[in-house]
Amino acid sequence: MTVAPQIPGRIEAALQEAIATAQAGSAPPKLASALHYAVTPGGARIRPTILMAVATACGDDRPALSDAAAAALELVHCASLVHDDMPCFDDADMRRGKPAVHKAYGEALALLTGDSLIVLGFEVLARAAHHDPMRAARLVGTLAQRTGSPGGICAGQGWESEDSIDLSAYHQAKTGALFIAATQMGAIAAGQEPEPWQELGARIGEAFQVADDLRDALGDADSLGKPVGQDAVNGRPNAVLEYGVDGAIRRLKDILGGAIASIPSCEGEAMLARMVRAQAERLTPVHARV
Amino acid sequence: MTVAPQIPGRIEAALQEAIATAQAGSAPPKLASALHYAVTPGGARIRPTILMAVATACGDDRPALSDAAAAALELVHCASLVHDDMPCFDDADMRRGKPAVHKAYGEALALLTGDSLIVLGFEVLARAAHHDPMRAARLVGTLAQRTGSPGGICAGQGWESEDSIDLSAYHQAKTGALFIAATQMGAIAAGQEPEPWQELGARIGEAFQVADDLRDALGDADSLGKPVGQDAVNGRPNAVLEYGVDGAIRRLKDILGGAIASIPSCEGEAMLARMVRAQAERLTPVHARV
Repeated sequence: MTVAPQIPGRIEAALQEAIATAQAGSAPPKLASALHYAVTPGGARIRPTILMAVATACGDDRPALSDAAAAALELVHCASLVHDDMPCFDDADMRRGKPAVHKAYGEALALLTGDSLIVLGFEVLARAAHHDPMRAARLVGTLAQRTGSPGGICAGQGWESEDSIDLSAYHQAKTGALFIAATQMGAIAAGQEPEPWQELGARIGEAFQVADDLRDALGDADSLGKPVGQDAVNGRPNAVLEYGVDGAIRRLKDILGGAIASIPSCEGEAMLARMVRAQAERLTPVHARV
Repeated sequence: MTVAPQIPGRIEAALQEAIATAQAGSAPPKLASALHYAVTPGGARIRPTILMAVATACGDDRPALSDAAAAALELVHCASLVHDDMPCFDDADMRRGKPAVHKAYGEALALLTGDSLIVLGFEVLARAAHHDPMRAARLVGTLAQRTGSPGGICAGQGWESEDSIDLSAYHQAKTGALFIAATQMGAIAAGQEPEPWQELGARIGEAFQVADDLRDALGDADSLGKPVGQDAVNGRPNAVLEYGVDGAIRRLKDILGGAIASIPSCEGEAMLARMVRAQAERLTPVHARV
């Protein structure tokens, strides 16, 4: 079931417009090409979809701000994939069924592509600021908080360089942060306070982490879009190694139930619950669906 | 001669406050340490000094915004140094007289340090937005434009991966961009239009490039703070290779004269001219001073 049929089109249009501005004029051709390569074709666009669903549930009274927020969040997510795939991190050759950016364009351009996409995310928000400067500034602040340090994906990735990991900080920052950004930025774009939306984002992030662990452990390489079994190889924490397959699936269902229960009262509450259930269906590995 | 004695203290205070927020709470310890290492002790802080001088010349009616803008600009500059020193670019072991971040902390943390510093730059601007949301949004937009693609330092660096270089786009983006950001962000922070300030930034950037070329060619490793002769080794364009030493020095003086002539009419015009002369003194290599 499609929750809001216009959302995917809005996300792609906002992303393509953003990439086009970064490719304009005197951009060096290879970098311009790599920026598009890193963002298209996309994965499931889960984070901007959640953002748009929350904005819609909150009334979406400044759609241009919601579009900008969705594009900004996905650009930062794509940047993180480009950098995470590089040899000094996961050294992953493939991403979304094609060569990783550093394999297709070399490490120098991969590093610059990630940097440029991060910057482009903030630029997109600044361009939309005239619709409501204070909301735009809060979107910049929230995206930055969930991207950098101490609470963002950079800090999450940073834990992998530590001898001893703070597991809770690690998971919340590495996977949770951009889901919290998704729900909170959706609320901000529509003029609502972000705080009540934190738990929904955190729980979706937790569910996503467990689902990712299940796919990694069960070897569902097609739907994962990257090599499997990497967590065991790299000694990374994984819910399946911790709870077993059945335990991890039970945990996934509990978390998603909690996510639905955490949705703040709003006109779009029922629609959001359907969206979480749709994401749950998508998140559950094919091998584990009943 | 000191142009505005309070400026260096304001810049350092704003930078240290920014780094402290990124190190707070649950930040992974090595990343937290690397963030400080990459920013302190600094170089000459030329870009934020120019920014503050322009803001002062324009009245500096929101000093908290000027402080945030100066910190944001220097954080992005430090991020670019961290990434540029990495093996896939300059492979430089030393920076500012100590091991480069990737030598001291490893490549993974160097990549994350650069990413985190970029993000922190935008976060600092968002935190100061309540002083004037529209100015803050314009600061975000200008910093992004001069950092990313097509007109920023990422695009400038990207030209080094092309088989044939657009030299004008390369120099303007690689070195000029953050000097243009400096003058324009100084104006924006103080509520002025940025356009009249573009030429001053562009000319200071050009002068800085020629001075850097002179130091690289003349082997002034101490004041350059990095290995010399790299342009000839790496086949990079260099004004000394193009015009000779005397020609490059003449060119430096012409550019600085043009920079002073380009200063827009404002109450701080004379002070800014003094600042450009002071920077000129600093830029001219010891070997070439008369």
